[in-house]
Formats: sequence, structure tokens, C-alpha cells
Amino acid sequence: MRIAVTGAAGFIASNLVPRLLAEGHEVLAIDNFFLGKPAHVDPFRSAPGYRFLELDLLQGEALAEVFATFRTERVWHLAANSDISFGTTYTDFDLKGGTLVTYHVLEAMRRCGAREILFSSSGAIYGEPTVRPTPENYGPLFPISLYAASKLACEGLITAYAHNYNIQAWIFRFGNIVGPNPTHGVIFDFVRRLRRDPSRLSVLGDGTQAKPYVHVEDCLDGMMFGHAHACQEVNCFNLAVPDRTSVAQIAQLTVAAMGLRPEIQFGEGPRGWRGDVAQVDLDTSRMRALGWQPDLGSHEAVQRTILEIVTQVDAFPERYA
Amino acid sequence: MRIAVTGAAGFIASNLVPRLLAEGHEVLAIDNFFLGKPAHVDPFRSAPGYRFLELDLLQGEALAEVFATFRTERVWHLAANSDISFGTTYTDFDLKGGTLVTYHVLEAMRRCGAREILFSSSGAIYGEPTVRPTPENYGPLFPISLYAASKLACEGLITAYAHNYNIQAWIFRFGNIVGPNPTHGVIFDFVRRLRRDPSRLSVLGDGTQAKPYVHVEDCLDGMMFGHAHACQEVNCFNLAVPDRTSVAQIAQLTVAAMGLRPEIQFGEGPRGWRGDVAQVDLDTSRMRALGWQPDLGSHEAVQRTILEIVTQVDAFPERYA
Repeated sequence: MRIAVTGAAGFIASNLVPRLLAEGHEVLAIDNFFLGKPAHVDPFRSAPGYRFLELDLLQGEALAEVFATFRTERVWHLAANSDISFGTTYTDFDLKGGTLVTYHVLEAMRRCGAREILFSSSGAIYGEPTVRPTPENYGPLFPISLYAASKLACEGLITAYAHNYNIQAWIFRFGNIVGPNPTHGVIFDFVRRLRRDPSRLSVLGDGTQAKPYVHVEDCLDGMMFGHAHACQEVNCFNLAVPDRTSVAQIAQLTVAAMGLRPEIQFGEGPRGWRGDVAQVDLDTSRMRALGWQPDLGSHEAVQRTILEIVTQVDAFPERYA
Repeated sequence: MRIAVTGAAGFIASNLVPRLLAEGHEVLAIDNFFLGKPAHVDPFRSAPGYRFLELDLLQGEALAEVFATFRTERVWHLAANSDISFGTTYTDFDLKGGTLVTYHVLEAMRRCGAREILFSSSGAIYGEPTVRPTPENYGPLFPISLYAASKLACEGLITAYAHNYNIQAWIFRFGNIVGPNPTHGVIFDFVRRLRRDPSRLSVLGDGTQAKPYVHVEDCLDGMMFGHAHACQEVNCFNLAVPDRTSVAQIAQLTVAAMGLRPEIQFGEGPRGWRGDVAQVDLDTSRMRALGWQPDLGSHEAVQRTILEIVTQVDAFPERYA
């Protein structure tokens, strides 16, 4: 199968690509290195069946040509702004890097006849739901960040393209995905800050924010399982774990794993930043009914990730400075 | 109150503006005449408190300056592509004319400190719902047209801006709005076609498509009532009538009102066009619970509109050619 991967130098794709290559697929990996890292791509550059292209997905015409030349059959569309708080400062950041990019990806698919898209959406589209755990059919969808607004816009574009242009879609609304090769995120931040100053750790918000943390290997297992076992025109799943970990717990687990005893300074208020959904609890029963469940619970995913990131930061301090 | 109206030369705004002026508001009316008509604006050009500006809302910087100079307090954001089928042919039409335009409107509001937006969304965002009549909290929202995808994207942008930038929003998910000064729509099409050729009338789809038709005066009553009586950060209402009219019924009502006996030729299949939601039935109980209900049912709205449009087409044949 000829598979295009967007956001190929990002966190999730860097964990996906070795799996796709191991399964014998031809992979067209695309990234503009705005958030992604060359180090996440370099290991595969000489791998059989792999080709990398540095391209901004806003270049719609170029993207359409590239998809056509590759004769793209399936797209793992993982490119996005992954820093939610950033989108509050630069209000067109998610609009361009999420919504417009997704339009260009879908348009390139339509023009070359690509038939399948897997998309990394987010539980953030539920905004601050009154039902928790929140199921996939929850409404209304009133996102409170421009990041989430963009993910919702992308979902709508995908379902409209699916209906009109014979494209099959798998939409996964992620909990917090964690694991090696991070480009952002709370664990990554904590480890970096503690490496710089082991005497103290400042935390955004009061630490009560609690979310389901999913290890990226479980995340990829789940996406592949969902893709293999759901066959509607549009297939949509929460991809999360049933339990949750608070930011205060992550701080404790991180300092313990690093053998440190810093002063932990909590911020004020229940949110990490403006637009942060502080309490996320996603109903995972639809994926469970399909026959899939994650190997690691939230705390386990966090603990494993802390060790993975500490190891990486120690091994490549310049990469994670 | 200083009120900006977008899409000011369009169908709904042309019916709104005289009301706003009668209530003593200062009105900044904006349109680029892409779909709107100068004839819808000309009657107000000399009215006290009214100023018109020809501007493409994609000109974000210019729009922000205009909103600031006017010291905009409230926005009726009615600009949009109103021709749903068009968006299937030109896939970036709704993205630009809906999603990006709405971003620029919100951004201009944020920058000038405007605090209120009323937005014309659509029941089309529900896609093809499994629950009918469809309530406002229906999910999932899987639109099947790029028009509806854009409306969903706009809603998400609005709720995110509302949360982060102290803007209060009233979102109205319209049924089919009908009345004088049309720029598009089934009744307008039928009248024009019958004026050209009274011997036959061709109908898109098999005529079984059925939707709630709301007269524009009821629509504006409802929006003003909702604005006056709902005070959440985000207020969202279906704006429709409880009954529905089929396209076949509209055809019969139109030919009867015009005193014609054409051969009516129905198309094939249950949809009017690709991406058409053929069966629309919106739950109106939330507006009713707020204390509002329309004066006209669906058939009455259609019948009144046929007479209004026939009269206009006869009076201004060149305008509606």
C-alpha cells in the first residue's frame, strides 16, 4: 500500500513510520520542520520504501502533484499545531496549520483518487462537556480553544469530503498521547525544566487538571485496530484510556523517577492556560466494543513515558534543549 | 447601539436592515456584491444612521480598521455562500467565503472590543442525523456538504473566541429561510424558470425532499427574541418551524399561485444535489421553551413567499433575470 504520512517529523508519526515500514508499505513522509524535528526523520532516510519530502502543506498545488506522483492510496494525516496554548496568542495558527492544511490534504486526495484517511482529532472538540465520560455522539460541540475549533473544522471537512468524493475516513479523538520523541507536552516540559534547574518545578495551573494519558504505542495500536475493524464511510472513535492522571501526579511521578526533590510551585486556577479543558474524561466504550483496549493505563503510560523521555534527553541533550 | 451587518446586500440582511434602522441603531452595512445585490442596499443609502461599505471580508486588516473606526459593538454576521451545491464544484468556496471570512470577522471584533455576535448557522451541520426532529445537542456532527462543514467550522471559531476573548454569541441553526429579496433558493428558481418557460418545470431530485420553511420575518423575530432572552456565553438555537414542505408541494403551490399548468418533470433520486440533506426536521422546542414561536407554518411561509417573489420578479424583471 502507498501511504502518505503528514507531520512525519512530529511525535506520533515518528513512532508510526517504523511500523508502516515493517509492514512493507511504501511511505511518503512529509513535514516542513516547523514543529517536527529532522532527528525524527533521519533514521529512516535510507530505509527501503521510504521517501521524505520537506513541504509546507499549505502549498496545495505542490501537495496535489506530490500525492498524484506517489499514487497515494491512504493518508495518515497527523500534521497539526500540537501546542494548544500557542493558538491563543497567534489566532490564525490553528486555522492555517490545521484547517487549511487539512483542506489541502483532502483536496490532494480527491484529485489523485486516494481513498482512505486516518485523522488525529482530539477530545478537545467536546469543549467543556456536561457528560463525562464523554461519548462520541456528545453534543453540542462548543470548543473553547482555537486548536479544538480547528480540529472540529477538520472533522467537518473530512466528513463532507467522505460523502461527496468517495473517501473513507477514520477519525480518532485523542486523549493526551505520550511517549518517546516528544515535541511538546507536560512530561517533556517537566523533564526539561528539571534538567535545567533541579531545585524547583513550576506547574501551570493548580495541578488538579486531570486527563487520560495514552501511550503512543497504544495510540497507534488503536488507530490500526480501528482502521482494520470499522468500515463505515466515516468511523469516529475516542482513543483514550478509562482512567486519568492529574498534573500534580505527573509532577510527583517525574521528580520521583528523576530522583529529585525540587520545590514544586503550583500556579493558580484550575486551567493550565486559557482555552485548556482542565477535566477530560473520554468514554472509551466504543473502541472497547470494537474489541480493542489499551495495554497501559494512564498512570502506567505516564510512568513509562517519563523514563523514555529522561533517557532521550540524557542521550541527546542538544536535541531537547 | 453601533451594529455591523455582514452580507448586507444579501437576502436576510436586506430584510434586517430596515428593522435595525427603525429601532434607531447605527448600522455599518458591509458587502462585496459577490452574491448580494446593489438593489438590496440602495434603498437605505440616504437613511440616517446607515452607512454602506463595499468590502471583501477576506481583507482582514481592512475589516479590523473599519470595525475599529465604527467602534462596533454588535455584529450580525450573515455573510456566507448561500448556494450549497456551488460548494461541491468549487471546493474552496465555502472555506473562503464562510470559514475564513468568519475568522476575520471574529478577529476584527476581538481587536476592536466588539462584544456580541449573532450568527446564521444551519441545520445542515447535523448532516444526516439519526434523530428527527433533531435537537441542538445532537451528535455526532458529520456534515455532508462543504457548506455545512464551513458552518460547523464557523460555530467552533465562534465558541472558541467567545470563551477566550469575552465575546457573547448567539448561534441560530436555520431551517430554509424564505421571503422577499431572494438571491437563491427553490421558490426563486421555480418562479424564474416558469417566467422563462411556462410550459414546463424541471425539479432537482424526485420532489420528496422535505424541509421546514421559515419566513424571513419570523426568522428575524426569532433571532431578535433569542438575543433578547438568552444570556449564556454561547447561545445556540434551531430556528425553524415544526412542520415541513416537500419540493413537490412547493412546485404545486408555485404553479397554482402563478395560474400555470406546466408539465412538472421530476429528477431522479431523493437528493436535490450532491451534499443535499433531503430530509430536514429540526427540533424547535428550545426556542419554544424560551417563549418564541413563528407566526407562519412551513406551507404558509412558502405560499406567502411565492406571492412576494412573483410580485418582485414582475416588478423588477431585469433584477431577477
